[in-house]
Amino acid sequence: MPLSAEEQSAIAEARATPRETLRAVAPGMERHLHSAIPVLDHGFVRVVDYMGDDAAIVQAARVSYGAGTRRARDDSGLIRYLMRHWHSTPFEMCEIKLHVKLPVFVARQWIRHRTANVNEYSARYSILDREFYIPAPEHLAAQSTVNNQGRGALLEGEEAERVLRVLREDSMRAYDDYEAMLSTEGQQGLARELARMNLPMNVYTQWYWKTDLHNLFHFLRLRADPHAQHEIRVYALALCEIIRDWVPAAYSAFEEYRLGSAQVSASGVACLRRMLAGEVVTQADSGMSPGEWREFAAVWGLEG
Amino acid sequence: MPLSAEEQSAIAEARATPRETLRAVAPGMERHLHSAIPVLDHGFVRVVDYMGDDAAIVQAARVSYGAGTRRARDDSGLIRYLMRHWHSTPFEMCEIKLHVKLPVFVARQWIRHRTANVNEYSARYSILDREFYIPAPEHLAAQSTVNNQGRGALLEGEEAERVLRVLREDSMRAYDDYEAMLSTEGQQGLARELARMNLPMNVYTQWYWKTDLHNLFHFLRLRADPHAQHEIRVYALALCEIIRDWVPAAYSAFEEYRLGSAQVSASGVACLRRMLAGEVVTQADSGMSPGEWREFAAVWGLEG
Amino acid sequence: MPLSAEEQSAIAEARATPRETLRAVAPGMERHLHSAIPVLDHGFVRVVDYMGDDAAIVQAARVSYGAGTRRARDDSGLIRYLMRHWHSTPFEMCEIKLHVKLPVFVARQWIRHRTANVNEYSARYSILDREFYIPAPEHLAAQSTVNNQGRGALLEGEEAERVLRVLREDSMRAYDDYEAMLSTEGQQGLARELARMNLPMNVYTQWYWKTDLHNLFHFLRLRADPHAQHEIRVYALALCEIIRDWVPAAYSAFEEYRLGSAQVSASGVACLRRMLAGEVVTQADSGMSPGEWREFAAVWGLEG
Amino acid sequence: MPLSAEEQSAIAEARATPRETLRAVAPGMERHLHSAIPVLDHGFVRVVDYMGDDAAIVQAARVSYGAGTRRARDDSGLIRYLMRHWHSTPFEMCEIKLHVKLPVFVARQWIRHRTANVNEYSARYSILDREFYIPAPEHLAAQSTVNNQGRGALLEGEEAERVLRVLREDSMRAYDDYEAMLSTEGQQGLARELARMNLPMNVYTQWYWKTDLHNLFHFLRLRADPHAQHEIRVYALALCEIIRDWVPAAYSAFEEYRLGSAQVSASGVACLRRMLAGEVVTQADSGMSPGEWREFAAVWGLEG
Repeated sequence: MPLSAEEQSAIAEARATPRETLRAVAPGMERHLHSAIPVLDHGFVRVVDYMGDDAAIVQAARVSYGAGTRRARDDSGLIRYLMRHWHSTPFEMCEIKLHVKLPVFVARQWIRHRTANVNEYSARYSILDREFYIPAPEHLAAQSTVNNQGRGALLEGEEAERVLRVLREDSMRAYDDYEAMLSTEGQQGLARELARMNLPMNVYTQWYWKTDLHNLFHFLRLRADPHAQHEIRVYALALCEIIRDWVPAAYSAFEEYRLGSAQVSASGVACLRRMLAGEVVTQADSGMSPGEWREFAAVWGLEG
Repeated sequence: MPLSAEEQSAIAEARATPRETLRAVAPGMERHLHSAIPVLDHGFVRVVDYMGDDAAIVQAARVSYGAGTRRARDDSGLIRYLMRHWHSTPFEMCEIKLHVKLPVFVARQWIRHRTANVNEYSARYSILDREFYIPAPEHLAAQSTVNNQGRGALLEGEEAERVLRVLREDSMRAYDDYEAMLSTEGQQGLARELARMNLPMNVYTQWYWKTDLHNLFHFLRLRADPHAQHEIRVYALALCEIIRDWVPAAYSAFEEYRLGSAQVSASGVACLRRMLAGEVVTQADSGMSPGEWREFAAVWGLEG
Repeated sequence: MPLSAEEQSAIAEARATPRETLRAVAPGMERHLHSAIPVLDHGFVRVVDYMGDDAAIVQAARVSYGAGTRRARDDSGLIRYLMRHWHSTPFEMCEIKLHVKLPVFVARQWIRHRTANVNEYSARYSILDREFYIPAPEHLAAQSTVNNQGRGALLEGEEAERVLRVLREDSMRAYDDYEAMLSTEGQQGLARELARMNLPMNVYTQWYWKTDLHNLFHFLRLRADPHAQHEIRVYALALCEIIRDWVPAAYSAFEEYRLGSAQVSASGVACLRRMLAGEVVTQADSGMSPGEWREFAAVWGLEG
Repeated sequence: MPLSAEEQSAIAEARATPRETLRAVAPGMERHLHSAIPVLDHGFVRVVDYMGDDAAIVQAARVSYGAGTRRARDDSGLIRYLMRHWHSTPFEMCEIKLHVKLPVFVARQWIRHRTANVNEYSARYSILDREFYIPAPEHLAAQSTVNNQGRGALLEGEEAERVLRVLREDSMRAYDDYEAMLSTEGQQGLARELARMNLPMNVYTQWYWKTDLHNLFHFLRLRADPHAQHEIRVYALALCEIIRDWVPAAYSAFEEYRLGSAQVSASGVACLRRMLAGEVVTQADSGMSPGEWREFAAVWGLEG
């Protein structure tokens, strides 16, 4: 990951100087603070700041004066109860601030989560770096033939090579032209706010992104899902590891009641009840469409 | 202020145990942490947690790796520029979490600020304390005769005494009846979620309230204003003192460009330009309604 | 329901004058427009305006130029797909504006749903009416002995009578004193913004409340739930009937994938799979706490 | 503007079939409904739906049963009062839904306004058209030499030609390669969600965008401002014309108290008072920085 010496030293400096605070401190998170975790070929996720810990969730739920209950086990039980019964406000009492470097087309998906605070690097004001996302060969997939919105088999042989060459060459040419248009050597130099439009959407951008734990869980549920686009999913998976270290009880409840859970429709509930009573149920008498039945059968290990 | 011994000891404990962190620390805010600042007769504001400081605003505005610029003076200049030009997102990068005790009618005004996270003490689940707001005599005002939405002269003599007595007696009777209906001595005992409806809106409630600095400034601009109702304004003023210690540069910019600023309408701009050119302008040829001209004249020290 | 003659005539007038529009029109909703549907003893829900219909959801999902697809059946299938896969943004493209009259303690629960626009009747500016919620005897319940946050058996005999008498008398006395403090007959008259604090939380207030269909569904899922407090649930149930007439396809999908659905935890999924394979599972080897197992057993019709 | 025959006919059909409604109807807005107003070289703004009118603002502010007051003049006075005193909630009671076609780099600025509902055309699911924004020569500007974030003089002669040629050629080549990578002729065909990353940010996208009038005014204040980037400003200016026809009283108040108003800092207020009293004030004794004084002098027509 291409952090410059200067950037590395800014990070090292931030990590070198612990200071005293009277706030809640999450030891598992302190280990991550400031370090940039590499994602994709030039991207990263870096925790800049955080507020709260597992006990802070309990403390807010109880509107209490101290910090959580006395026993970690009670806190954990309450956190599981809150998550199970969709009490979202106590989870909003924890906050995280990230510095993320990511391709523009990923940033455009990410920003659709509106309940967050964002400061993006401005290409009106500054010049973007020559950094573009080029997929690793093991992620270069063909259009899915069954899912309009997904990937199918890996591209092979010459086609894969051709695609990678095109992506690289078009990126480099676009950047060369971006630089040439900006240049003030022997010419006026195009405004930065115009020149940037020549860059393709695999160019990297950066932002500070801040959100609360409830909204972060919602983001992770959608973006760590196997149906999410690979290029945003790897950011979500990196974040999952961080959150697990930050608020272990809340993350464990999130895995139990969200990530690993199943939402069963009214028809699905009726079918499962019949099946539990020994009945054999087929798509034809399930009340579900064929597509829905396929999804249902996959969850419950039925034959199509 | 009626914190119990147990509550006081929870606060003292939280203040007694500094821990190490690699996050930004605001020394002026650490002094306030956990202490309950009294407001009104039974209320308080208590900072439970915070994220960020002046440098964090600069750091986000620059999407930088380190912490702000090298020189506090440069940070302050940038912060003033951001505030002046309505760049709100860098201020959203600081966050504060408060524990507030306040009368219900104040809470109902406060909650209208929606961009915040709230956990309120639940009167479905728990029993409220016998604590009611009774105005101090110096805040017991008559209805304004010029402003439908404000206060006029202080109540005097017997009327003031009568009002205070009524407020006290009705509060006590409502609470006695609340307790009596809840009691399970020799009866079933009314559900808490029903019994609470007998309490008047000067009863105290509590909540955890968390918001970012930009939205907090917006709250303070409206609620620290002299036209705000006194009973919410005193909370806003207490918060102003805290914020000044937390982010002195941002607070100073807030005073300069928001609290102490004037919004001049298009007609007002035209009038001021004429007046600067030596012309005498009156309401009749100002393009303003009489009410608007009164407000304008008050700001600029003109005779009505 | 106590609408004055003047209010009734304003409603009748609004219903009497159809006008031409080029916008999407939902015939089922036009029937409800402006009429006040009674809720509780003095409350109501009244649809003031709406935007969009089932076809508008499809149109937005497709970012299309025309209105939905040609066939209602295709629209309905797409709407079910969107709801099943948590695509929330197309549902945000429908909007509803309500005029609601409700007791203050219900308003305080309602307002916790923050993604909405609200204009409440101002008791700083105006004088509230003498209208208080008094529960019907069939809703006057004792505190639940198993659920800290719920109701148990109905109150009986003398206790029920006593509670109703107390609620009525305290309401009337509080209102008498409110009026007496406001009066300017032979005295200055207390400011309205202060006098209102003497009123108990069963007093009725009114507001305009506007939200989008996605957030309304979220509200209904939580507040039409059998665990919601009865006094807010009756508003939610009244709204369900209205929404069913407005966007029948979306409402049907909401019933199938939200209202009638079950969220099964990771442990629950594992248990159901074992049970479908013929295994007998008990709480002891379910991986669930006793409380959680009780909830699970209730959904799937198992013995405790 | 390149609407296909099919799109034109969908629009014509929507405009051809007025239907009856009991809702508020804004005649000035009905004229705009569905028609696509051209912006930039391939973009447009098209009103798909709206809710409310000037009277609806008044109706919500009064929480009334009927529609506004009897006299338009009273409505207008109240609307001016609400705008002047920052009462934002009544303006939130009007809603607008737009279909917008715009370059991606403009969409990325636009989306930073988070309080809105958005459905964007999906390039994971569908194939984008061969349409790119190429600036008209009269908008092809050099980087400003005084403002890091703005434009200076127009590009001239050969440089202008060269820039336009580069933008056109890079766009066409990127699109050719996009098509070639997607093609399934004699190859597998790259997934759409990957191929799209090769397109530069002047490619056009489309979305449905829905917001309320208060947030729209906030958007227009920032984006119709002369300091906004030209390419988003032209969308804002097109919207201003539409809004003026929709809610004439509210738009007029917006011009008076926002668009044409001046925000004067605390130091600025002090300076203006001194100047009104006949004193000559210079930057040196103004309490303002040189940059701030320049902005102040420009507003009030002072010499630098």
